[in-house]
Amino acid sequence: MKLTMLYSFLKSDIDLIEKELERAISSTSPSLRDASLHLLQAGGKRIRPIFVLLAAKFGEYNIERVKNVAVALELIHMASLVHDDVIDNAELRRGKPTVKAEWDNRVAMYTGDYIFARALEYMADIESIEAHQVLSNTMVELCVGEINQIKDKYRFDQSLRDYLRRIKRKTAILIAASCQIGAISANVPKCVSEQLFQFGYNVGMAFQITDDILDFTATEAELGKPAGSDLWQGNVTLPALYALEDEKMREKIIGVNAHTTKSEIDEIIAHMKRSDVIERSHALSQRYLSRALSIVDELPSNRTKKTLRDIAKFIGKRKY
Amino acid sequence: MKLTMLYSFLKSDIDLIEKELERAISSTSPSLRDASLHLLQAGGKRIRPIFVLLAAKFGEYNIERVKNVAVALELIHMASLVHDDVIDNAELRRGKPTVKAEWDNRVAMYTGDYIFARALEYMADIESIEAHQVLSNTMVELCVGEINQIKDKYRFDQSLRDYLRRIKRKTAILIAASCQIGAISANVPKCVSEQLFQFGYNVGMAFQITDDILDFTATEAELGKPAGSDLWQGNVTLPALYALEDEKMREKIIGVNAHTTKSEIDEIIAHMKRSDVIERSHALSQRYLSRALSIVDELPSNRTKKTLRDIAKFIGKRKY
Repeated sequence: MKLTMLYSFLKSDIDLIEKELERAISSTSPSLRDASLHLLQAGGKRIRPIFVLLAAKFGEYNIERVKNVAVALELIHMASLVHDDVIDNAELRRGKPTVKAEWDNRVAMYTGDYIFARALEYMADIESIEAHQVLSNTMVELCVGEINQIKDKYRFDQSLRDYLRRIKRKTAILIAASCQIGAISANVPKCVSEQLFQFGYNVGMAFQITDDILDFTATEAELGKPAGSDLWQGNVTLPALYALEDEKMREKIIGVNAHTTKSEIDEIIAHMKRSDVIERSHALSQRYLSRALSIVDELPSNRTKKTLRDIAKFIGKRKY
Repeated sequence: MKLTMLYSFLKSDIDLIEKELERAISSTSPSLRDASLHLLQAGGKRIRPIFVLLAAKFGEYNIERVKNVAVALELIHMASLVHDDVIDNAELRRGKPTVKAEWDNRVAMYTGDYIFARALEYMADIESIEAHQVLSNTMVELCVGEINQIKDKYRFDQSLRDYLRRIKRKTAILIAASCQIGAISANVPKCVSEQLFQFGYNVGMAFQITDDILDFTATEAELGKPAGSDLWQGNVTLPALYALEDEKMREKIIGVNAHTTKSEIDEIIAHMKRSDVIERSHALSQRYLSRALSIVDELPSNRTKKTLRDIAKFIGKRKY
């Protein structure tokens, strides 16, 4: 079962959005265009545009109007990915800070800014003040989340609450906003658009927890990077937080830093897999999904409800 | 004569904006707040808010509404300053790329993103689609300008047109947008708000050219950095472009790179000052100012017209 099969009835609309995304980042500046196109062609699940469209199905669905919102939300997601990479890139070249690396970083930063500004152009036509408020609040939360993520690196005394707040800001809020703004752009009643926000929030939390589990359980081939990379880079996620409760695992995990070897990380992962931390992490993800599903139950009757359910279930089971 | 004396009748409104700016960057995240407050307290001329207010005086001036626009425009300016510094900072520490430096850079980048997102929150209440369009187009141009500035570094074969397009994107457009969006937020008729945009554009061009002249002619104490820093960093500005037309100066200027010594830069500056390149640069700045002044003449009668004229004249004469 592939994710795309769950919303095949949206295929032609998603193709339109894909084309518009390409147009959006065609710039007069060749280096900007190349950098952005590279990112676009790298693909992605286009989860945010899909939620925009699905939410709009609860109102006066007009693809021309909702298309712009979908493009804007995906561009914001792309811009945040570009900024995520800015300094990571430099770290890879640590010890060799070539002028080229610094040049690249600056260009990467402005490429992110540019993609973000293009997103705003797509949003500019939306008359609803509420849509602009939701979006700008979301942006603020995203930035605070990013900064907290940097500050929380290698901080092994953080709480579950710290983690949940961080993934809320980092992931869940943008998915929630995609649902809500998609709904607003289709004149969905406020109470329904707010329910859709809650649905998106819960799905987003489950999505990020699943991502964080996969970072430990998937193979290097599936991830495109070594398993355990999050922990290695000091990003303390849910499975690691649960593992820290165990005396023995704790001892090893709190010693992790940038100089830890791959075999040390592998050993920690093996220990974690033998314990119940992966299972417990799945259980928390499932709790968010159950909440998402019960919100769907309360939504007005609509054939899109089934798709929302299918996607929520899919996210809980996905293996990559 | 100080700039602030030219608009003393706006003092209480500008004080309000100053307070709102402080509130705007008060974040729950202490490191974010500190970084932003530092920037705010460093001051600045608040030129963009002033133009927002002055332009709004041509319509239904409502300080509560126009205040949000003024705060937004200043925040966008501040965010762009933060991003400007991101990699410069790293360059200063070249050869010693401490983790701290990279950490700082990432935080600085997200601080810029955060301030920018806060700006959008202040704009969200503005109902006019046109205002959102002008602002988002401005953001796109700003980013393209920044990227071109990086690409044009140490490129001594660039044309006057390259330079003018760059300063238009880098400086003039945001000042022009401040005038236009200020006007739009006060329901100024479209033809007048577009004239105000043109006024802002021409003032902005003159302002940046003057800045670029001062980089050569002011003292280190006035500038807070060595004279000729632009050239040293490879930023080819108007006086340098004119100097490149002279065989002898050309020879020296095209040899400038990051390893050039201060005394070599000082020698080039001395040579430039003996030539007519500063005078010619002033002349071009004056042409933009004349155009700005003639646009003011065409504006509807209003006691603000005198202030617009005074500010334009002041910018042409400013010594710091």
